[in-house]
Amino acid sequence: MEFQQNLDHEIVRNERFEKVADQLKPTLHRENVEVARLVEVEKDEGKIHGWGVREIDSGAALEDKVLGKGDSIILDFNDHLVGYLKLDVKPVGSPPDAPLHLKLTFGEMPVEVAEPFSNYKGRLSSSWLQEEIIHVDVLPQVLEFSRRYSFRYLKLEVLDTSPKYKVSFTKAVVETVTSADKEKLVPAEYKDNELAEIERISNKTLLDCMQDVFEDGPKRDRRLWLGDLHLQAQANYVSFQNNDLVKRNLYQFAAVPNQHGQVSANLFIAPTLIPDDTFLYDYSLLFTSTLHDYYEATGDKETLVDLWPTALRQVELGIERLDENNIVIDDETWWSFIDWQGDLNKQAPSQAILLFVLRKAIALAEALEKKAEQEKLAEALERITQATVEHLWDEEQGFFISGSDRQVSWASQVWMVLAGVLEKEDNQQLLKRLLKDKEAVGMNTPYMHHHLVEALFISDLKKEALDWIKMYWGGMVRDGADTFWELYNPEDKEFSPYGDHIINSYCHAWSCTPTYLLRKYL
Amino acid sequence: MEFQQNLDHEIVRNERFEKVADQLKPTLHRENVEVARLVEVEKDEGKIHGWGVREIDSGAALEDKVLGKGDSIILDFNDHLVGYLKLDVKPVGSPPDAPLHLKLTFGEMPVEVAEPFSNYKGRLSSSWLQEEIIHVDVLPQVLEFSRRYSFRYLKLEVLDTSPKYKVSFTKAVVETVTSADKEKLVPAEYKDNELAEIERISNKTLLDCMQDVFEDGPKRDRRLWLGDLHLQAQANYVSFQNNDLVKRNLYQFAAVPNQHGQVSANLFIAPTLIPDDTFLYDYSLLFTSTLHDYYEATGDKETLVDLWPTALRQVELGIERLDENNIVIDDETWWSFIDWQGDLNKQAPSQAILLFVLRKAIALAEALEKKAEQEKLAEALERITQATVEHLWDEEQGFFISGSDRQVSWASQVWMVLAGVLEKEDNQQLLKRLLKDKEAVGMNTPYMHHHLVEALFISDLKKEALDWIKMYWGGMVRDGADTFWELYNPEDKEFSPYGDHIINSYCHAWSCTPTYLLRKYL
Repeated sequence: MEFQQNLDHEIVRNERFEKVADQLKPTLHRENVEVARLVEVEKDEGKIHGWGVREIDSGAALEDKVLGKGDSIILDFNDHLVGYLKLDVKPVGSPPDAPLHLKLTFGEMPVEVAEPFSNYKGRLSSSWLQEEIIHVDVLPQVLEFSRRYSFRYLKLEVLDTSPKYKVSFTKAVVETVTSADKEKLVPAEYKDNELAEIERISNKTLLDCMQDVFEDGPKRDRRLWLGDLHLQAQANYVSFQNNDLVKRNLYQFAAVPNQHGQVSANLFIAPTLIPDDTFLYDYSLLFTSTLHDYYEATGDKETLVDLWPTALRQVELGIERLDENNIVIDDETWWSFIDWQGDLNKQAPSQAILLFVLRKAIALAEALEKKAEQEKLAEALERITQATVEHLWDEEQGFFISGSDRQVSWASQVWMVLAGVLEKEDNQQLLKRLLKDKEAVGMNTPYMHHHLVEALFISDLKKEALDWIKMYWGGMVRDGADTFWELYNPEDKEFSPYGDHIINSYCHAWSCTPTYLLRKYL
Repeated sequence: MEFQQNLDHEIVRNERFEKVADQLKPTLHRENVEVARLVEVEKDEGKIHGWGVREIDSGAALEDKVLGKGDSIILDFNDHLVGYLKLDVKPVGSPPDAPLHLKLTFGEMPVEVAEPFSNYKGRLSSSWLQEEIIHVDVLPQVLEFSRRYSFRYLKLEVLDTSPKYKVSFTKAVVETVTSADKEKLVPAEYKDNELAEIERISNKTLLDCMQDVFEDGPKRDRRLWLGDLHLQAQANYVSFQNNDLVKRNLYQFAAVPNQHGQVSANLFIAPTLIPDDTFLYDYSLLFTSTLHDYYEATGDKETLVDLWPTALRQVELGIERLDENNIVIDDETWWSFIDWQGDLNKQAPSQAILLFVLRKAIALAEALEKKAEQEKLAEALERITQATVEHLWDEEQGFFISGSDRQVSWASQVWMVLAGVLEKEDNQQLLKRLLKDKEAVGMNTPYMHHHLVEALFISDLKKEALDWIKMYWGGMVRDGADTFWELYNPEDKEFSPYGDHIINSYCHAWSCTPTYLLRKYL
């Protein structure tokens, strides 16, 4: 997916909604974490990205290390952290007769503190790479960094002091931040240690992404995306239960639709609430599903009443894109996300998401006792479902096809199952066929893998679902994940849709869902 | 001169003196300066360092420039400034979906914004090179830089934004700081425009170096050196007359001598008052001369009484270094500054400075009516003067010689004249011979050239003195100086004692003296 720009879109701002959202701004929970150990990175082809980590000393030994020009040291905080760094530095030798010139590199993964960022050749902005180069004029000094970082490893490199003095770092503390309250985490017990570990990391991933809003990734893009929110909210209901944060984010999306009433794919919160000029067919529809899940989890009718028109509008817009056959028009003018998968045709999965969301909308109309709208939506569901079977189901192959090239993809089958286009028994058969298929276009993100696992669970393929979780999220654990990653393809572990895996996010909201899947379906 | 380190020196702190100094902390005068024009640098072998400047647009045009990844622009503030930058930056295009990564390079001279600092190979710390690399997470933003910079040119380089947006700099303002009060500048009139311009730049140089203390250079080293203070104070008495700043700095030096009572060559003010572990024979002696001049300018007897013991002690220490012939011992154990001149033997000029300072000490003893001390000092002056003529005067050459190699240098002759070793008539002849001499070891700093010019003036060589000012300081003006430079050798304009002229200071205290020389001797 290249970058989408809509410079002429208009924002229709709902100030009351924005105010409701502002009033729900969360208080962040803060905790101090000290450096655990000092490490070196070393080439290791057996490790992800080819980099291993070796302990060289305890964290307490940091203060005794003396660093001069060209010296560096890597601090390991022993877990993924999101927060603010405070670094105490003192001079060693003569009084400092020149500033300290210091470079800091923050890494979620060893590769980030092992390979120079100057090698970066990806398509996303290099400004996401977490590094700072600072001058310190007065020593000793307590350096308080105002930017928030997402990292486990911190590399400190002394670019220069002067021939007369060196420096020691006498303390390194990170004040972590999250709007998740650990105390409120609903307990869960697993006999299976592997699942217990996967769930622990799921919760940690969610916790690190819960900030002022549900962020997609605290390293990058640090903002509220609908596709991520849809899954984070589901994980949240069964874990930290900060339901007001979901409410806040729903009101934020509803506060700034465009002139057609479509909600943006993502929002910026600072300096003010600004919708991105990126619109995605599937993401806008997922607003409605997110509202549905929120109402189901909370019974908050007031919010439902407020946001129903926005939710309904997304469905209407989804339907407006159908052709005379009631099939989503697939041309150059639209954007639908589905997965980071360059080969993927988006038509069939998008059609399925429309159906998936129609079901949620009908349930909401029913809750609101909006009979006329409910009937209209039910009629649409039936009509579009029939059209889907008629035009997108390939009886011969036993798969749904997508686009003019009649592409068979995992995404299409998975979403059609979630949309309930076929009967349960047929869905189960479809998924069984899919699991054996080697030809279908595959999946690259935990986001898409989540939908597969949920499709397996609801099709009574519990063993297959658990095996998949252990294969996929368990694979990340075996590859050293402290939090779950934005991208993971077990067949191609260096995969990045951005052209360089160093820019990938290694703590990503849409990867946090095992906690939801396990707690709901086990 | 290599770096001097005395890690075992002890500081004998006088808290009362420190308190007096603290109470005299100046209030800084602040003024806002906006960008004057936008420029490009271009190779020009006719210009200093080979770089010329070409105007490309007005300062007001800045806000219309749109800069994306890899774009840069150079702002010219049209004069040398010392202060704090405030930069307004706004996004252009889509909402910023990645941080702005921005590099700022501050230059006193075009070369600093023309050649990359990564080429720097000098001996002084590269941390003095004025650049910052920052990330801006939220746009628009008013960037307020907390470090003080010394510059005329500011290069802004956009390292990255994102494919979806660029930036414009809508405002660039520098809040200048100085403890000199422009309103108090004693007026002076010159019929000669060249001298008027030289004086204007002298005053500007002094003003930019007058901060919390008399700094040597606001770019580097930004601190209080005795050799600079000695001249700055003299320039100050005839111009801005902030005499309390001299008093403050004298008390600061006297507050932190070492265990032998010697004052340091320079002081650090932050985080607390700390003397450097560098001690210079000549600089310590100049404390006494600085106190003398301060008393002469102010008549402040209370300060004289307080600081006399420190002043006397410097002279005693100077005398302690004499051998049995009453000549300063020249060996590997000492450091005397005199000039940035690698070939220079320091013995004779140091001997002369001892005599020069002895005269000042005698005057102070007289003012204090310390008869016994006065007589003792007078006896020393006579004894050492006789020894100087006997051992360091080479009748055959008609020059003072220095060191075991009997070196003839400009520094030796100049300081011997200032010390009054010979009669006035003989001094005049000596200087006339010197001006024609091609063999003597020459001078590299305005500091040394200042002493030559003062020697010419007091030897009634007024025309030669003025010609020298026009040749030397006028040469800097013709070479584009906005403020006078730390180093200037008209025969070798790229000269740097640090191995790279990019680290030279282009606004340096010891170069500000034409205002003193012209006002005193014209």
